[in-house]
Amino acid sequence: MSKAKVIFDTDAGTDDAWALITLLRCEEKYNIELKAITVVSGNTNVKHGCQNILLILKTMNRLDIPVYAGAADSLLFHSYFKHGHYHGMDGLKDVFRPEEKPSLDLVQKKHAIEGLRALIEENPNEITIFAVGPLTNIALLYKMYPEISTKIKNLYIMGGNHQGIGNSSRTAEFNFHFDPESARIVLDESKCSVLILPWEPCLKACFATPHKEWRFKVLNSINNEIIEFMDKIEIDVQFRKSFCPCDAYLVCCFIFPKMIKKVSEFNVNIELSGEFTRGQMVLDHKLLMKPNATIIEEFDVEMFKKILLWVCGHEIDI
Amino acid sequence: MSKAKVIFDTDAGTDDAWALITLLRCEEKYNIELKAITVVSGNTNVKHGCQNILLILKTMNRLDIPVYAGAADSLLFHSYFKHGHYHGMDGLKDVFRPEEKPSLDLVQKKHAIEGLRALIEENPNEITIFAVGPLTNIALLYKMYPEISTKIKNLYIMGGNHQGIGNSSRTAEFNFHFDPESARIVLDESKCSVLILPWEPCLKACFATPHKEWRFKVLNSINNEIIEFMDKIEIDVQFRKSFCPCDAYLVCCFIFPKMIKKVSEFNVNIELSGEFTRGQMVLDHKLLMKPNATIIEEFDVEMFKKILLWVCGHEIDI
Amino acid sequence: MSKAKVIFDTDAGTDDAWALITLLRCEEKYNIELKAITVVSGNTNVKHGCQNILLILKTMNRLDIPVYAGAADSLLFHSYFKHGHYHGMDGLKDVFRPEEKPSLDLVQKKHAIEGLRALIEENPNEITIFAVGPLTNIALLYKMYPEISTKIKNLYIMGGNHQGIGNSSRTAEFNFHFDPESARIVLDESKCSVLILPWEPCLKACFATPHKEWRFKVLNSINNEIIEFMDKIEIDVQFRKSFCPCDAYLVCCFIFPKMIKKVSEFNVNIELSGEFTRGQMVLDHKLLMKPNATIIEEFDVEMFKKILLWVCGHEIDI
Amino acid sequence: MSKAKVIFDTDAGTDDAWALITLLRCEEKYNIELKAITVVSGNTNVKHGCQNILLILKTMNRLDIPVYAGAADSLLFHSYFKHGHYHGMDGLKDVFRPEEKPSLDLVQKKHAIEGLRALIEENPNEITIFAVGPLTNIALLYKMYPEISTKIKNLYIMGGNHQGIGNSSRTAEFNFHFDPESARIVLDESKCSVLILPWEPCLKACFATPHKEWRFKVLNSINNEIIEFMDKIEIDVQFRKSFCPCDAYLVCCFIFPKMIKKVSEFNVNIELSGEFTRGQMVLDHKLLMKPNATIIEEFDVEMFKKILLWVCGHEIDI
Ligand SMILES: [Ca+2]
Ligand SMILES: [Ca+2]
Ligand SMILES: [Ca+2]
Ligand SMILES: [Ca+2]
Repeated sequence: MSKAKVIFDTDAGTDDAWALITLLRCEEKYNIELKAITVVSGNTNVKHGCQNILLILKTMNRLDIPVYAGAADSLLFHSYFKHGHYHGMDGLKDVFRPEEKPSLDLVQKKHAIEGLRALIEENPNEITIFAVGPLTNIALLYKMYPEISTKIKNLYIMGGNHQGIGNSSRTAEFNFHFDPESARIVLDESKCSVLILPWEPCLKACFATPHKEWRFKVLNSINNEIIEFMDKIEIDVQFRKSFCPCDAYLVCCFIFPKMIKKVSEFNVNIELSGEFTRGQMVLDHKLLMKPNATIIEEFDVEMFKKILLWVCGHEIDI
Repeated sequence: MSKAKVIFDTDAGTDDAWALITLLRCEEKYNIELKAITVVSGNTNVKHGCQNILLILKTMNRLDIPVYAGAADSLLFHSYFKHGHYHGMDGLKDVFRPEEKPSLDLVQKKHAIEGLRALIEENPNEITIFAVGPLTNIALLYKMYPEISTKIKNLYIMGGNHQGIGNSSRTAEFNFHFDPESARIVLDESKCSVLILPWEPCLKACFATPHKEWRFKVLNSINNEIIEFMDKIEIDVQFRKSFCPCDAYLVCCFIFPKMIKKVSEFNVNIELSGEFTRGQMVLDHKLLMKPNATIIEEFDVEMFKKILLWVCGHEIDI
Repeated sequence: MSKAKVIFDTDAGTDDAWALITLLRCEEKYNIELKAITVVSGNTNVKHGCQNILLILKTMNRLDIPVYAGAADSLLFHSYFKHGHYHGMDGLKDVFRPEEKPSLDLVQKKHAIEGLRALIEENPNEITIFAVGPLTNIALLYKMYPEISTKIKNLYIMGGNHQGIGNSSRTAEFNFHFDPESARIVLDESKCSVLILPWEPCLKACFATPHKEWRFKVLNSINNEIIEFMDKIEIDVQFRKSFCPCDAYLVCCFIFPKMIKKVSEFNVNIELSGEFTRGQMVLDHKLLMKPNATIIEEFDVEMFKKILLWVCGHEIDI
Repeated sequence: MSKAKVIFDTDAGTDDAWALITLLRCEEKYNIELKAITVVSGNTNVKHGCQNILLILKTMNRLDIPVYAGAADSLLFHSYFKHGHYHGMDGLKDVFRPEEKPSLDLVQKKHAIEGLRALIEENPNEITIFAVGPLTNIALLYKMYPEISTKIKNLYIMGGNHQGIGNSSRTAEFNFHFDPESARIVLDESKCSVLILPWEPCLKACFATPHKEWRFKVLNSINNEIIEFMDKIEIDVQFRKSFCPCDAYLVCCFIFPKMIKKVSEFNVNIELSGEFTRGQMVLDHKLLMKPNATIIEEFDVEMFKKILLWVCGHEIDI
């Protein structure tokens, strides 16, 4: 059976790290081939993002996977963002010394957009892209090569919201709020199948169980380099109310489709010009237009926890 | 015990009719005094609205209640509305012959805004206003007399939404969408307590039970002038999927507070300038601002049905 | 010959003072009857505005003219304005002691909107309104009484711009920028003739000649109570580059139509939602719609100077 | 003396043709080197645009100049545009038979953005770009390679407006209106010198003299392949009121700087979200920000006419 070919497009925050580690751990057993990682500005800038990804790959002994640098900023500049420093100055909580970080020379010379294009052209209708940061890279890819999305198999997006609940502004989720124009372009122009995991089911999962306690007690009851690495970069999660590995939820929904409990299909778009609603994902509740996306409304948190235990090395059946 | 003094501000559609009939039926038993009815443009124009209200009052033998004509249109003119004719040309399904309708001479000479002002000044901190149409009258009242809202006891609003689900556009509810600027003014400038019944819990109620079947089988198992009147103006409900007496839900939540199952407090505002989201109610999900409204998230549909049975003359304990 | 009946709707700044003094001085000789003054929020708040107007009337011995208080704020509240204090806290440079100011008891009890309505109804098709502040009063009048503008003879507006040159923001003039929604309502719904003096010809006039020097040398070469009063409230003009009595330009264009050098007719509207352009007057340059306003593009500054000399008591032929 | 290296970024309409022919005719005498032509969507789609450019190059015997295909559409899709067909379906009035048109195989294989990047990197601080169509190519170049504009010598833009006069909407000029987001990006992020020829001085030039009569009488009093070619594609100009070779005005302002009569420096930006003003160029009239562009306010039409006569082969001193 042929492998599922995937590309991981990421802004290299801590939940991106969980997602990437999950992908790498599952590659062999679940017949996946991670073809490349493309980095985009968001949680941190694109240079730090590349470094963080290389650091994860080094930890996982997988520096063989090609890493490409992508868009250095959102399409439009907005005064309300100057790179989220939500995850520290370097997007990984600033816990690594410069000498611990792999050299940026390991980053591919080609631009991420050219890298994406080449891989898609070489593997037509075979590639699934995980877009777990702002959608700038995907939008630029579409604007440079308008027909390319006909050759993408699936686009899995973590971003947006379906009930107007925001985490970056009143009504907008971070990834879409950081670059609303790119989100608009991707939702308007994708000719491939698009699946979206919005913020609300993630939010519900984070608070459904004492998720944070589980993270540090149950998950940490084993010790290895994954736990050690994630403990370092999630040091502040101990002082917060929740543990929210959104990007990893999405990756698990792909590898273990049973984890998805409820989906709906809608025509969705992005508000660009609202005073309060810029960046909000807007659903065609009146059902006047053809659906362009499948929305994950609910997923199985207990199953996710089992997967993550296995990813971290616990002996457990998923 | 003193009576609860109320004013009914309405755009005179069929659910407004249910709400008004409920108020009139409950007045004596539940210690309510309906001081006046003010009419606003919305479901129909203000002239037809006045006529419809007079028709209901005539049916209920209550032409003693003063009726005032208010705003003839939303603050700003918008091409997408030219009076909703959702409830027929006259807002009551066009089922009455002209000669059946009471004369417009019965309408007060004073403008509704002056009528509201006088009643509030005469009964400071005693009046509850039900605003069950677009908020144009209330907004004009505030702009004419900026301190008046300090003398209103409660403002009960049917309108807006709290999860971005629209019935008039993708993301906006009719009453707020018809005049977003007025909704903004009222939410920004009310100095009295504000309670909002948004669209989502109404939507849920309408589909929770086979509401429409209940309307025509159970509710209609008695015969009197209320049933006869409402059957006339709800003739088309028989051919629709749901029965949605939103304005009556709100009135019942006031008279029978136990009917309210879940509320939340939020700072809410109205989006004015979005391409898709104009008229959407926006909640401060990040909890950065002081709440300015209480939102009814859920109410007891079974209790509502009992109330409506009693209102229609069934012998039943509420 | 019957007199021209006028109402002066004002936000009571220093150029409003020049305009009002000009009107009062010209009343007899040029067959004008000032029926009332209505005050609106803008350069200062409405309470200070009323006081300032009473002060001018007292100086001119004309406390017989009725003064009405109007809208206390723009339709929508905007964070970027909290009453322009461009003309001092009281709109007249704070140069008068409280005891010098006439009592607010002299203000009419009726709201300005009701006052305007009554005067227009009593003098149908005879009244010219000068609107030389934000258009809130006129907008509220139209929304309360939709048919009233059919009975106004002329509406003369100082406000807006026709080449995108702003004085309050990049592209908006103060009077329109202070309350764009009211400007929209007035331009959309006026059924009477509308004449607009926008900012650009005023700007040009202010810099066409060493206007400021003329103000303090030539105009001040006579001494009387007008000069004394205006010197007090224009004390800071001495330190500025220009002298810009915009509202008086408009009044003179009415009394001396020859002063108008160039007009054009356009369909004009107001931008409400632009990031940069909120409040900008927008002309239908593609000429797709019927004109709704006459725009004064150029006027004779030399003639204006002669008029002002005469107004101030110089013996000069206009 | 070294040659001025230029790139011509064009949407291949008829005024683009005049501009390109002028550049080619002036190359040798005025020491210019046209390095490449990049085509963008606008007056016609990018495929027709390339074909049109090849046709001009064939006519001028200059198929040696590399032609690159660029962006196929504006960044965001807007319902009000589906490629301007102002200049016919193929942007050149549909007057050439398919067999007359050179093969698209002559178009470079590299994307225009990669072509632009390579040429700029190879000639740092030496290249002047003429952007005479929508700014999509330049915007994509900046977003792909954020530092590239530090190596551009000059950016000459035909587009936008400085007095709010529109030709594509009430207040917007076609090139900026077709892709306002790209115009925003270019004006926000250019680190090189930017010169803009807006619509208003062009409009004035077109009507300053009986320009159209001059075009067909004086200019056509000679006969050669340039006149023959331009007559074909400007066949409809005969039936219009004006002759408006805007893009050629800009190119001439570059080659003959004396043609420029008045410039001003402003901080300029683009309105994106206005109801009426989307795409309008907005000047910082309050002079609060550092200028980012030089605007040509007026140029010498008589000098332009001499230049065009010479370009067309008339014996005349410029
Ligand atoms: Ca991420
Ligand atoms: Ca209603
Ligand atoms: Ca004024
Ligand atoms: Ca062009």
